Amino acid sequence: MKDLKNEILAMVGKDLAEIEIALKDNLNPYLELVSDVANHILFAGGKRLRPLLMVLSSRICGYKGSYDKTLSTIFEYLHAATLLHDDLVDGAELRRGKTVANRIWGNPTAVLVGDFLLARGLSIAAATGKPKIIKIIAEITENMSQGEIKQLIRKGSLDLTEEEYLDVIWRKTAVLFRGACSISAIIANAPKRFEKALSDYGYNLGMAFQITDDLLDYTLDADALGKGVGADLKEGKITLPVIYALKKADKTDRLRMESIIKKNKFSVREFKSLIELLEKYGGIAYSKERAKEHIEKGKRALLLFEPSKTRKILEYIADYALIRKA
Amino acid sequence: MKDLKNEILAMVGKDLAEIEIALKDNLNPYLELVSDVANHILFAGGKRLRPLLMVLSSRICGYKGSYDKTLSTIFEYLHAATLLHDDLVDGAELRRGKTVANRIWGNPTAVLVGDFLLARGLSIAAATGKPKIIKIIAEITENMSQGEIKQLIRKGSLDLTEEEYLDVIWRKTAVLFRGACSISAIIANAPKRFEKALSDYGYNLGMAFQITDDLLDYTLDADALGKGVGADLKEGKITLPVIYALKKADKTDRLRMESIIKKNKFSVREFKSLIELLEKYGGIAYSKERAKEHIEKGKRALLLFEPSKTRKILEYIADYALIRKA
Repeated sequence: MKDLKNEILAMVGKDLAEIEIALKDNLNPYLELVSDVANHILFAGGKRLRPLLMVLSSRICGYKGSYDKTLSTIFEYLHAATLLHDDLVDGAELRRGKTVANRIWGNPTAVLVGDFLLARGLSIAAATGKPKIIKIIAEITENMSQGEIKQLIRKGSLDLTEEEYLDVIWRKTAVLFRGACSISAIIANAPKRFEKALSDYGYNLGMAFQITDDLLDYTLDADALGKGVGADLKEGKITLPVIYALKKADKTDRLRMESIIKKNKFSVREFKSLIELLEKYGGIAYSKERAKEHIEKGKRALLLFEPSKTRKILEYIADYALIRKA
Repeated sequence: MKDLKNEILAMVGKDLAEIEIALKDNLNPYLELVSDVANHILFAGGKRLRPLLMVLSSRICGYKGSYDKTLSTIFEYLHAATLLHDDLVDGAELRRGKTVANRIWGNPTAVLVGDFLLARGLSIAAATGKPKIIKIIAEITENMSQGEIKQLIRKGSLDLTEEEYLDVIWRKTAVLFRGACSISAIIANAPKRFEKALSDYGYNLGMAFQITDDLLDYTLDADALGKGVGADLKEGKITLPVIYALKKADKTDRLRMESIIKKNKFSVREFKSLIELLEKYGGIAYSKERAKEHIEKGKRALLLFEPSKTRKILEYIADYALIRKA
C-alpha cells in the first residue's frame, strides 16, 4: 500500500508543486486576512486530491493550457471551507491529528474564513465566464450544504437508512469529486462522452472515498486515525457499517449496539465490542464491498480513454482510495 | 416620517407581495429542511429593501418581464445568510427584537442554513447563464466576507480610522445595494449609462443606510432599537459617531469615552454620558451629514432617468433611509 501511494506521488510531484503555488497565489491579496487559519486548514498536510483530479482529468482530455491549475484551486477552497464549517457543526476536536480551527481561533473566525474561501472559489469560477462551469460549482455548493443539513437533521438517528446515508455522502463528497473531474472536460473542449466518463469516474471515486473514510473509524486505531476512538459515533454520525449491522443483527445484539451508540462517551472496551458486532453481522465487509463496486465502476469509465500515463495515475488513485489508511 | 414610509409601502404593495411569493417559491423543494430557521430569519418582518431595489431598478430601465422577481430573491437570501453568520460572529442576542437564530437552534444550524441560503442565491444567479451577473454576485459574496473578516480583526479597536470604517461598510452593505440596483440594468439590456447611474444610486444608498443604521444605536432608545442599549459597542463595533468624537475630543473626554467603550458591560447612565460626549464633539451631527451627502449623490444619479412614479419611489426610499427609526 505504501508503495502505491509513493508511486502515485512520484508520478504527480510536479503537478502537486504547481497546485501548491496556485493555492497560495489565488488567495492573494487577501492572504494576510486569513493567513493563520488558511495555513492551518489549507497548508497543513492536505492531500490535494480534488485539485489533482481536476488537473489529471484535464490532461486526459488533451488540455494543454495552464488555467487548469487556477481552476483546480476551487475544489480545494470549497473543501477547506466545508471542513471549517463542519468541524464547528460536528463539535469535532481533532482533524488530521490537529486541534480543529474553531477551537483555536473561535467559531466567529472559522465561520468567516469558511465563507471567504467559499466566496474565493466562486469568484474563480465566475472569472471563467463559462456559465456551464459556474452552474456546476453553484450546484456543488448547494448540494454540499444540503448534505450537511440532512446529516445534521438526522444526527444520531439509529433508524437512518442506507439510502439516506448514500444521499448524504453523495451530496457531501461525491458531487465535489465529480465536479472536479467533469469540469476539466469543459475547459478542454472535449467531446461530451469524455465529460460523461470523467463524471462517472469522479462520482464513483467520491462515493468509494467517503465509504472508505467512514470505515476507517472502525478499522484503524485512534493514533492512525488522528481524531480519537469512535469520533464519528461521538458526533452522532451513523455510517454504513453501523446501518448494515443494525439491520442484520438479532434483537439482543441490536439492543447492545444501540446502547453503546447512544452513549455520548463509551469506553474503548465498549467500542471494541461494537466493532466485533459490526464484523459479526458483516457491516465492515458489506461497506468494503460497496466501496469496491464503486471503484470498479469508476475504473471502467476510464476505459473510454486510450491507455496513458495519466489514465494509469487515475486508476492508481482509484485503487489507493480503497486501501488507504489515512 | 411615518407618512413617507406608508406612502412608499402603498406604492410598492404589489411588488412586495410578488417578492414574498418568489422568496418562498425559490426555497422549494428545500423548504422543509430549513423551514424553521428560514421562517425566523427570512419571513419575520424583513423590509425586503434589497429585492425591492432590484425590482424598481429593472422597471426604471424599462424591463417588462417577470424574471426580476426571481433574481431579486438573491439579494434577500444573501442578506439573510449574512445575518445568520453575523449574529453568531457578533455574539448578538437580539435581532429586530427577537432572539437570534443561533441562540434558538444552535450554532451548527445557523451556520449550515446560512451556507444553504448563500448557495441558493448563487444557484439562482448561475441559472441566468449571464457571466456578468454571476461575476457581480460572486464579487458581492467575496466583498461581504472580507468586510466581515476586517470587522472581526479590528473588533474593539479604538484606533479604527474613518477610512477603515468606510471600507468595512462598503463591503458589508453598500456592495449588495449596488449590485441589486445595477444587475437590473443588465437584465433589462439597458444602456451602460443606466447601469452606471443605478450603480451610483445603490452604492450611495447603501453607505447612507449603514451609517444611519449605526447611528440608531446612539439616537434611539433600546425598545425602539430592538437589540438593547449600546449593542454595537458591546459587540466591539466602533462606528462613525464614535470614531469622529474620539478624534475630536480633548484628552480628558477621550479617556472618559474610552473607559466606557472598553467595558463589556456599561450602565445606562454611562452609555448616556457617552452619547452626550458624542454630541459634544459632533460625532452624531458629522455622521448625519455624511449620510445626507450620500443620499444627495444617490438622488442626483437618478436624474439621468425621466421623471416617473418609479423614480419617485427610489427617491422616497433614499429620503426614508435618512430618517428611518427601525
